[in-house]
This record gives sequence, C-alpha cells and structure tokens, in this order.
Amino acid sequence: MRRGELLARTIASIPPPDLDAAAETARLLEAKTKPPGSLGRLEDLACRVAAIRGSVPDGPLRPVIVVAAADHGVAARGVSAYPQEVTAQMLAAFAGGGAAISVLAREAGARLVVVDAGVIGVSDGVKGVRAEILDGIRGTDDLTLGPAMERSTAIGSIERGIALADELADEGIQLVGLGEMGIGNTTSASALSSALLSEDPERMCGPGTGLNAEGLVRKLDAVRKGLAANGLPDADADPIEVLAAVGGLEIAFLVGVSLGASARGIAVMLDGFIASTAALLATRIHAGSGDSMIAATLSTEPAHAYVLEALRLEPLLDLRLRLGEGTGAALALPIVRAAVAILTDMATFDSAGVSGPSARADAIAEVGDA
Amino acid sequence: MRRGELLARTIASIPPPDLDAAAETARLLEAKTKPPGSLGRLEDLACRVAAIRGSVPDGPLRPVIVVAAADHGVAARGVSAYPQEVTAQMLAAFAGGGAAISVLAREAGARLVVVDAGVIGVSDGVKGVRAEILDGIRGTDDLTLGPAMERSTAIGSIERGIALADELADEGIQLVGLGEMGIGNTTSASALSSALLSEDPERMCGPGTGLNAEGLVRKLDAVRKGLAANGLPDADADPIEVLAAVGGLEIAFLVGVSLGASARGIAVMLDGFIASTAALLATRIHAGSGDSMIAATLSTEPAHAYVLEALRLEPLLDLRLRLGEGTGAALALPIVRAAVAILTDMATFDSAGVSGPSARADAIAEVGDA
Repeated sequence: MRRGELLARTIASIPPPDLDAAAETARLLEAKTKPPGSLGRLEDLACRVAAIRGSVPDGPLRPVIVVAAADHGVAARGVSAYPQEVTAQMLAAFAGGGAAISVLAREAGARLVVVDAGVIGVSDGVKGVRAEILDGIRGTDDLTLGPAMERSTAIGSIERGIALADELADEGIQLVGLGEMGIGNTTSASALSSALLSEDPERMCGPGTGLNAEGLVRKLDAVRKGLAANGLPDADADPIEVLAAVGGLEIAFLVGVSLGASARGIAVMLDGFIASTAALLATRIHAGSGDSMIAATLSTEPAHAYVLEALRLEPLLDLRLRLGEGTGAALALPIVRAAVAILTDMATFDSAGVSGPSARADAIAEVGDA
Repeated sequence: MRRGELLARTIASIPPPDLDAAAETARLLEAKTKPPGSLGRLEDLACRVAAIRGSVPDGPLRPVIVVAAADHGVAARGVSAYPQEVTAQMLAAFAGGGAAISVLAREAGARLVVVDAGVIGVSDGVKGVRAEILDGIRGTDDLTLGPAMERSTAIGSIERGIALADELADEGIQLVGLGEMGIGNTTSASALSSALLSEDPERMCGPGTGLNAEGLVRKLDAVRKGLAANGLPDADADPIEVLAAVGGLEIAFLVGVSLGASARGIAVMLDGFIASTAALLATRIHAGSGDSMIAATLSTEPAHAYVLEALRLEPLLDLRLRLGEGTGAALALPIVRAAVAILTDMATFDSAGVSGPSARADAIAEVGDA
C-alpha cells in the first residue's frame, strides 16, 4: 500500500457519533433507582461511550494503554531537566513493569502496550517492547534548525499508529489510553500547540518535568526558533506539515492511534499535555475524531488547559499530575468502568420496587431533577 | 458500660497524625523513577495515608463502605422530592445489590456494610442489613418542633458507630467510606451545618435530590424553624447538642464511625454533603479526627463546598454527583489504591537503572521539581 493510503482510508471511515445509542443509554439511566441525573458526569460518560461504540454498552469496556516513546533532536538545546538517555531507560522501565504507568495500568486492569516509536540506543527485539521504527529513524532532527522529520515520515508514523489501533479493534479492545515519553517532548508539544492554536509560545511553554527559570527560557527560545525556522504559525499550513515541522515520532504515532481508534469505534482516553496535543492534531486532520475522545486529566502544565479547551473536553480528574506516560488515563479508567457498570448493573425503580418521586408535583423540579 | 463512656474513651484515644511515617513515605516516593512530585496529589495522598495508619503502607488498603440509613421526622414538611417510604425501599435495594452504591462498591472492590440506623417500617433481621436500632427508635422527631432526638439517643447512636469501626479495625480494615440515605436528610444536614458554621441557612440549603423552587422554600423554612425551635445557632451549644437538636440517626451513626475509625488508624473517606456534615460534627467533638479524613468528592449541593472548606479538605473528584449513599467515596477509592500502589510497586531510579536529573544544574528547579 502506498504511504498515505491507509491514512486517507481511515479518515474516510470515521463514523459520526451514534446519537441514538446515546439517547437509548440516557433513557435506560432514567429508570435506575436514583434521582435522575444525580450521578452527574458518570451518566454523561455512559452516554458518550455509547455514542462512540455505536451501541449501548452491555459489559465492561476492554481497555489498553499505549505508551509510545521516541527521542527528540531538540533535547540538545537543554530544554529538559533530564538527559536524553532517560528515554531509552524509561522505555525499558515501562516494559520491566516498575514504571509509574506499568503500576497504574495494572491497577486499572488495562494491558500496557509499550511502543518504541524511535528511541535512540534501543535495539529491536527488546522483550515487551513493540518496535515501530520507520525507515530506521530513531529520534527527530532538531526542530530549531528546520523540520523535525520529513512529511512522509510523519505520515508513515501516523499509519503505524493506525495499524496498531486496527489490531486492537480486531482483538475486541474498546478503549485506548494515550501515553507518551520522550525527553524534550513538551518542547515539541508546545511548538505544535502554539502553531495549531495560533497562541504565543510564551503561553504554551511550561516547566515540563521540572525546568527552572533558566531552562524555561531556553525552551521558549527553542520553540520560537523552531516556529520561525519552519515558517509557523502559518494559517495555510496543513496539520501534517505542522507535525512534520515541530512534532515527534511518538506524537505522530499517537495521532495515528487516535484516528484509527475513532474509525473503529474505540474510545480514546487522553492523558496529559503531550498526548492531548497529539489528539488535537488528530482533530485537525479529521474533526470528527474528537467525538471519540474522553479527557482523563488536567495536567499542571499550563498549556494543557488551552488544548483541552480547543478540544471542547472537560477532564475527569484534576490531581495535579505532570508525568505523562498515560498515568492520567490509567487513573481515569475506573471512572469510565463505573459509568458503564451503573448502566449495566443497577436495578430500575420497577425491578427494585422503589417508589418514584412524590405525587406532590410542586416538590419536583422540572429539568430532569426529580 | 454507661452510655457516653465508649465515646469518651474513643475521643481520648485518637492519636495525632504520624508525621514520621508521612516523611518516610515522601522520602521513598522521591526515589521512584519519575520527576519528583510529578504524580501530584497521588503523592500527597500516599503520605496522608501513612500519617493516618501510623506506618508506611506496605500493600493495598482493605476498604469497606458503610451506608447508614434512617428516617427523618422533618420529611413530613414536604422537604424532599421523594416520599418517606423510599428510605426503607432503598435500604432493601442496598442489601439487594442493585443500588448505585451496591454496584460502585463492587466495582471498587470494597465490601458494603448496610446499616439500618432507624428506618421506619423495616423489620429486624433483614438479610444483608445490620440493624442498629437504639431503644426501638425508628426515625427522628420533626426538628421544626423541637429536638430531633434526645441527647442520650445521639450519644448512643454515635457509640453504635464507634462499635462498628472497632469491629472493622479488628478485621484489619484500613479505610472506611461514609455513605448515607434518608428521605429528608439534606434538610437535617443543612440545619446542622448552618449551626456548626454559623452560616445563614439560605447558603446551606440546596435542591437535594431535586427539589424545585417551592420545595426549596419549604426546606429553608423548615431549617429556619428547626434552628429557632432548638435555640440554634448558639455559640455555646456543644456539638452533640446540635446533633440531637437537628441531626439524624444515620448522621449520628456516621459521626461514630468516623471517630472510631480515627481512633484505630483507619482512613475515613467522606462522601457528599451529608456524610461530610457528619465528619464535620466529628471534628467538632474531637478536632484531631479530621486528620484521618480524605475528601472524595465535591457534590453539586452548594453547601458541601462550605463544609469541606471548614474541614480544610480538597476533594479528589468533582463529577457533579448529588446522590450520596457513599457513591463518591466508592469512586475515589481507586485513586487511593493507586497512590498506595505507586509507593509499594514502583521501581526506584537505582533499581531501574534510570539516570536522575541532568548534571546541568541550572536546568533543574529547586523545590522538588527536578
């Protein structure tokens, strides 16, 4: 298949949300033994899951978390508190089971898919790591000097992500959490979101893993240089061009996972700033993909709020996380599971023999608040 | 034992938080393979659990959720959208396994303890229900006409709750979620919190299960009448007097569970407005009991925010719940479990062979943000 074909086919097959399934879910929730609407966002979530799947959920969703890692040429600019070799070390830690996301995915009952999307110094065939190295490329070029990658690399990486989503769909997976790791990747995400949202880089740059003021100055400088070197923001630039210019290989991969999941009715659980920026990119490639997304968490990285606002998503959690890896997605999973359990396992007023609201009509509010 | 003796003994045995255990937990978290502090509130939570237990957690906490139900004489004033018999029906639904809290406790892996603290029309010996009927009292008197219960009833109900907490501690339970049910009990909680916080009842009355404007007027009127009839707020009133005046039997029971849990190093997970008001009462009886509490959720009931503020607790979740029953506590349980798992299961930089922050000192922020 020609590069770009899978992407085009995937975009074309993204379905609209199934509003009938959502309405049927709302109707079923109305009959449950509780004041209507009293489970708040849990009820909205059950309806959203139904719209994404295209049917009323009839049992727990089968979840995975994909954590994609890659290196970034811009790391050479001193934009991270950690040295570049940490990307490879963390990839090994993900597979080894002792990293934060390894622990939290286990706790959430989600399989963790560890993807090497282009980490420097990792050999193929590491146990527990899925190597997705395109054309032998490990790490992007320094985005302050020009494009981080070629356009065809960006497309190819997206398609690798789509292929993974397809595999997961074939396995019966119904929810995928997006995780990432890559020293320097908040710099890339800041540049991407600055360009996509036409925001001043100053608003989009934060401390990442823990930069101090001097480090933050270097990061902001790198983002400004990167945007300038690549002629961004450019209102005419297409999203894939932006991705190639200042993106990352793991980010491109997650764009693909997101698009591929949308096309197959899999719910996409965002994580922090970087994963959400990948999701934003996916919606710029196809707006309808946003209907498959659920925002797990609000990061302390200031730019995250802007990205979620642009996606029109309200995060489920605000626990002041700033780790990424998919940790926020893992932490929000039990909430989605609970939303579905309410729908599938709760009794109705009829089945439980519980009286409905008082006949005294004036005691009852009108808008679903009985 | 004379009534009041168990309460006095329990209060006297509430330990201060173990700051050494908390500091040791923070030290252990510092060594984990992640930027320090990057798991945000999860890390604070692990430290808090250590302080409550008096030791660094070494495995998953064993949780239960206690849902206590009772009837309220004030229900006759048309202060709820539902008829009074719903209390008994919901008690049966809790035990039957189809209520929201039954489902969510199961999802969270917590045993549900269903307590009949004084529900009208329920016979003793219902399967799955723990009858805690004091002196044959089922339901409080109408608080608009005078005290809802006698002082000795309030003390006795508290002591029943303490006895349950003691049993749970003996079983090795390490976390207890507080749930409640009782038609009319937001009215009682509004009156209690108005008195305890010296707030205008207008600020403390909300729609509860879904009152409309007329219902809300009746509720506010009932609260004002109740406070007046009982000579509240009275800066000199002791908290047990306030509880007897405008409280509920399930609320008194939860005050006891909370105090008893504190005394035994069990973490107390609050739920919505009513359970949190019981917790507030517990802190007025013994301030130190507040150190054992974790706020699960922020209810849409407007008064809840004031109660949590008075407790100086920040809720883990804000999912626009307004059901009670312990549902918010159940939904927050996986977050506590995750916090402990991070501590017990994550690898350290050393054990995982991951490099620490860059030697380039100026890239690193100072306050734990490396």
